[in-house]
Amino acid sequence: MKDAVTACVLIIGNEILSGRTQDINLNHIAKTLGKWGIQIRHCRVIPDVEKTIIDTVNEVRHEYDYVFTTGGIGPTHDDITAVCIAKAFGVELIEHPDIAVRIRKRPAPDDIMASRLLMARVPVGATLIDNPSGGPQGFAMENVHVMAGIPSVMQGMLSSLDGLLKSGPIIHSHTVRAYTGESSIADALAKIQDQHPDADVGSYPFFRDERYGTNLVIRGADIEQLQTIANLIMAAVTAIGETPEDLGQDAES
Amino acid sequence: MKDAVTACVLIIGNEILSGRTQDINLNHIAKTLGKWGIQIRHCRVIPDVEKTIIDTVNEVRHEYDYVFTTGGIGPTHDDITAVCIAKAFGVELIEHPDIAVRIRKRPAPDDIMASRLLMARVPVGATLIDNPSGGPQGFAMENVHVMAGIPSVMQGMLSSLDGLLKSGPIIHSHTVRAYTGESSIADALAKIQDQHPDADVGSYPFFRDERYGTNLVIRGADIEQLQTIANLIMAAVTAIGETPEDLGQDAES
Repeated sequence: MKDAVTACVLIIGNEILSGRTQDINLNHIAKTLGKWGIQIRHCRVIPDVEKTIIDTVNEVRHEYDYVFTTGGIGPTHDDITAVCIAKAFGVELIEHPDIAVRIRKRPAPDDIMASRLLMARVPVGATLIDNPSGGPQGFAMENVHVMAGIPSVMQGMLSSLDGLLKSGPIIHSHTVRAYTGESSIADALAKIQDQHPDADVGSYPFFRDERYGTNLVIRGADIEQLQTIANLIMAAVTAIGETPEDLGQDAES
Repeated sequence: MKDAVTACVLIIGNEILSGRTQDINLNHIAKTLGKWGIQIRHCRVIPDVEKTIIDTVNEVRHEYDYVFTTGGIGPTHDDITAVCIAKAFGVELIEHPDIAVRIRKRPAPDDIMASRLLMARVPVGATLIDNPSGGPQGFAMENVHVMAGIPSVMQGMLSSLDGLLKSGPIIHSHTVRAYTGESSIADALAKIQDQHPDADVGSYPFFRDERYGTNLVIRGADIEQLQTIANLIMAAVTAIGETPEDLGQDAES
């Protein structure tokens, strides 16, 4: 089997840490990379503080195959991600002609254009990440992919990377739902997990339609093995007198 | 002015990193702590991996005044947070009588009760965090507060800490909305930020009702200063021929 390909996501922005904005970028990136065979192992939400961004990028870029950042690449004074990435890699920041061309397409007075052109700055050696919305592109510096914070723009940039990244095994999930408390099934579940250490068995309680229940989610690369484990869990739920539902592969539950 | 009181949030759970679950706990904790005068400076989302949890807790608990964790305190094999916190502090895990009393209130067969009682385990020296839902309590070990992952349960636990934590200055926000691109106002905004380094001026573009606009958000402890800066931003937006809206203090925008 192929080796796992891992990623770390950095969500950059005071507005997430202050609670002003609910982040939805991690979830989208996780689902997308999951389909591409890349596993997110870590995410950090950090403020718009130069030293924090530089130190964090330099810590995580050596630890994971890929780093994906969101936020801080607009035209205002609090958009410091590009500057920080250049400093993290110890290179200069330059105006990238392909981004500048896009920005200049929309006319503006000189001072506004000067601000907009701040979005054309990339570290020396960076490659561009397309922006299907037609706005300024993102960029990749080695294994660090720098994307916008606005979800629709970030999603477009990420989609443009489809097929361009290395991939490991695709991790699938298989969900069994039981209308029972977690404790009733905990013992059996632990035994099943012990017997199948290369799959990941998770238990997620919920309350829905006035009923308590638990989604039992098996994750792993081998679809047949997931079905085998799901069958064991179905049998364990049946054994305690409940009726399990097999929601099947990659169910949203 | 009082010193800032800082916090780090640890979201523990494979289901967040795989994209199966959209985290909403960070946002709630951020808003709540903000009202209490505690600033979140960092958040990490980490997997249900013992070494990762232990190392992360030991790294961040010395760096911030408070650490708040969510997730991993249920009764199944993948709930390892309490074990990890005990190991991080180098102490034993014991069954806390006050939690056990609650758990035993609801009768169950011996094997199910044994699983449920796993939720009564806390590190030696921990104090309890009440759970207003009536379920097992969370706990605090020194400055590390360990809460459930289910949002409704976590929210109850957090609310029970109201008035029990030390607090710094409360950071307020003041929002000015302008239906203009960020670039048009970038220069003026940078100058205003330079002149008021102890407030934090942020610029957040949006697209709503078929119009592009930018929310200009000033954050700081001094409400009068926020209004002064808001007035400067209003004047700057007016100067470029747009009509700003003063959304006022702590507006949800």
